Amino acid sequence: MKAITQKDLNDPTSLVLEDVADPVPGEGEILVKVHTAGVNRGDLLQARGHYPPPPGASEIIGMECSGTVVANDTGEGPAVGSEVGCLLAGGGYAELVAVPVGQTAPLPEGLSLAETGSIIEVACTAWSNLGMAAGLRPGTAEGKKVLVHGGSGGVGSFAVQMLHALGCEVAVTAGSAEKLEYCRELGASKLINYREQDFAEELKGWADVILDIMGAKYLKGNIRALAPDGQLVIIGMQGGTKAEINLAPLLPKRLSIHGTTLRARPVEGKAEIVADAVENVWPLIADGSITHRVHETFPLAEAAQAHAALDSGEVTGKLALRVTD
Amino acid sequence: MKAITQKDLNDPTSLVLEDVADPVPGEGEILVKVHTAGVNRGDLLQARGHYPPPPGASEIIGMECSGTVVANDTGEGPAVGSEVGCLLAGGGYAELVAVPVGQTAPLPEGLSLAETGSIIEVACTAWSNLGMAAGLRPGTAEGKKVLVHGGSGGVGSFAVQMLHALGCEVAVTAGSAEKLEYCRELGASKLINYREQDFAEELKGWADVILDIMGAKYLKGNIRALAPDGQLVIIGMQGGTKAEINLAPLLPKRLSIHGTTLRARPVEGKAEIVADAVENVWPLIADGSITHRVHETFPLAEAAQAHAALDSGEVTGKLALRVTD
Ligand SMILES: NC(=O)c1ccc[n+]([C@@H]2O[C@H](COP(=O)([O-])OP(=O)(O)OC[C@H]3O[C@@H](n4cnc5c(N)ncnc54)[C@H](OP(=O)(O)O)[C@@H]3O)[C@@H](O)[C@H]2O)c1
Ligand SMILES: NC(=O)c1ccc[n+]([C@@H]2O[C@H](COP(=O)([O-])OP(=O)(O)OC[C@H]3O[C@@H](n4cnc5c(N)ncnc54)[C@H](OP(=O)(O)O)[C@@H]3O)[C@@H](O)[C@H]2O)c1
Repeated sequence: MKAITQKDLNDPTSLVLEDVADPVPGEGEILVKVHTAGVNRGDLLQARGHYPPPPGASEIIGMECSGTVVANDTGEGPAVGSEVGCLLAGGGYAELVAVPVGQTAPLPEGLSLAETGSIIEVACTAWSNLGMAAGLRPGTAEGKKVLVHGGSGGVGSFAVQMLHALGCEVAVTAGSAEKLEYCRELGASKLINYREQDFAEELKGWADVILDIMGAKYLKGNIRALAPDGQLVIIGMQGGTKAEINLAPLLPKRLSIHGTTLRARPVEGKAEIVADAVENVWPLIADGSITHRVHETFPLAEAAQAHAALDSGEVTGKLALRVTD
Repeated sequence: MKAITQKDLNDPTSLVLEDVADPVPGEGEILVKVHTAGVNRGDLLQARGHYPPPPGASEIIGMECSGTVVANDTGEGPAVGSEVGCLLAGGGYAELVAVPVGQTAPLPEGLSLAETGSIIEVACTAWSNLGMAAGLRPGTAEGKKVLVHGGSGGVGSFAVQMLHALGCEVAVTAGSAEKLEYCRELGASKLINYREQDFAEELKGWADVILDIMGAKYLKGNIRALAPDGQLVIIGMQGGTKAEINLAPLLPKRLSIHGTTLRARPVEGKAEIVADAVENVWPLIADGSITHRVHETFPLAEAAQAHAALDSGEVTGKLALRVTD
């Protein structure tokens, strides 16, 4: 099959389309012919050598895709010929991918194969952290105050819509007036320009839950922005990993800090997330509460250009790679 | 009534028995004649000016007691004449105390008024953090690995027995071979002398849950000692409040850090904790799984001596003050 490989591990832009061996499904895995692969920030990190795939996973970049099942010997899950979305530990930038059967989902009602290729990673990230870890679910989320850092990004724009649909009050940070306006359209009601404003000063004691992608740089501010019983969920460390922490406010305010990654979870944990997201989030996509904005789709051979586009910071919504028709 | 007051706020030993005005029960509160008041480390902190009572609470020291109901106009809860244990925001070192009705509990089966006076604070602390926050409950706790720092202390010795009764594997730290032997008798199976061993090195990646009382000093070691999905619950900061934190291990291991205090919780939260502890923990006291060791009981007038005894570090079990007969 054809797949993207990185020719020079010291050069993150050396992504080329080459012939490689077809993947062989392992125990509990099915084989999918890839239609569209989503491009995620984690892919850029992997190309830079910072985010290696978990042991045993494909070395090929790509954490999600859509496609058609071409082999399934597991005795469960989607039949050969079914169209599916896949949450991957790696291997998405390729014509074929082997995926644990529990990490496949039906296309959300109303979405095409092309659109589904770049929605599962953000949907599962948003749901596992906000719905499952922080407990913002139908029936409990109503009226909760949530801060989403980077509200116009891939994960952020999905999370804002999802939280709004669940009845939360949503605050966001973003780097420009246009991006904040986009967040407002998605359902955010408190808009903070992180280049001009100090979010902690704006929100002190306001947030029941914060979805953070900055790590060290925002740790102190996030603690300050939390309300009593507040939960900080850290999923990215774009602002570094090492920080000073003052534990004193954690105790009387009963705060919690939680770190997670989707990719490093065991297969069973991922299957649980996909199933819970299909149950709780797919209906919100089907009824239009969450819309999926694909900013641009590149041919697979242009993976390097797609990475450069995401890196530019000019993207609002998701980027994707068209693999086969 | 007679109560302990602190004559000189700069001298934590200036605790004297004096006549003060009787407390007047507020909305939803009942009046209790105190039999025995428990002595807690928080009381020592309060006498040093480090742990002020929450707004609206009595300035008198004392976070728990046992006694007899002498007035109840709330229309619910225990009748006048009933013997109860009380979780207090303050006011225990006195002949009378006003307490929200939801913060009273029946005496655990088999325990006297004298014993009940020093069990509720540790029981509610252990249960709210381990049972409620960390989810170590009947049915879910079995086989979980839990590290209790200061396993022979007031909270620690209760927690070790409770966790053992729930089927957990328990590790402890303590400062001497005798104290570790006491922890073994209570049900701990991994014994770590913190003066001679590095607990993080002994336990690296072992603990599903850690109950911490050291704060900053142990933060790095606690993170290292946690297993994937591990939870660190910090309830004390005997080792300071400010630390360096490396967030990097939190994400792939999906760790969480949670701070709590019992005393600062709203009245409803405390009532919920007391009720849940009575339901889940009182039976473990009744059936002998948890025994309550009162190290020594001082007359109320000797509160300063009781504080000095707790401060000496020579105590194994709880200290109490006998208030009335
Ligand atoms: N742990 C997990 O399981 C997991 C899963 C998926 C993603 N992630 C992480 O989540 C983050 C977002 O991923 P993505 O795919 O959504 O990437 P993305 O679309 O490239 O979004 C990056 C976001 O970061 C925002 N940002 C940059 N500097 C900021 C600052 N100082 N304050 C606030 N926001 C700032 C950007 O906002 P502007 O565009 O307005 O500057 C943008 O919204 C990445 O760090 C990624 O690694 C983690
Ligand atoms: N947040 C809350 O709601 C809450 C409620 C109750 C208590 N607390 C806190 O919990 C802590 C314990 O309270 P307590 O009433 O049980 O006090 P305690 O009976 O005086 O116990 C103090 C404990 O600290 C241990 N310790 C001292 N230095 C240590 C070290 N370097 N490593 C490990 N353990 C060490 C002692 O062990 P050795 O005797 O072996 O030296 C002892 O077991 C206090 O900090 C208290 O403020 C918090």
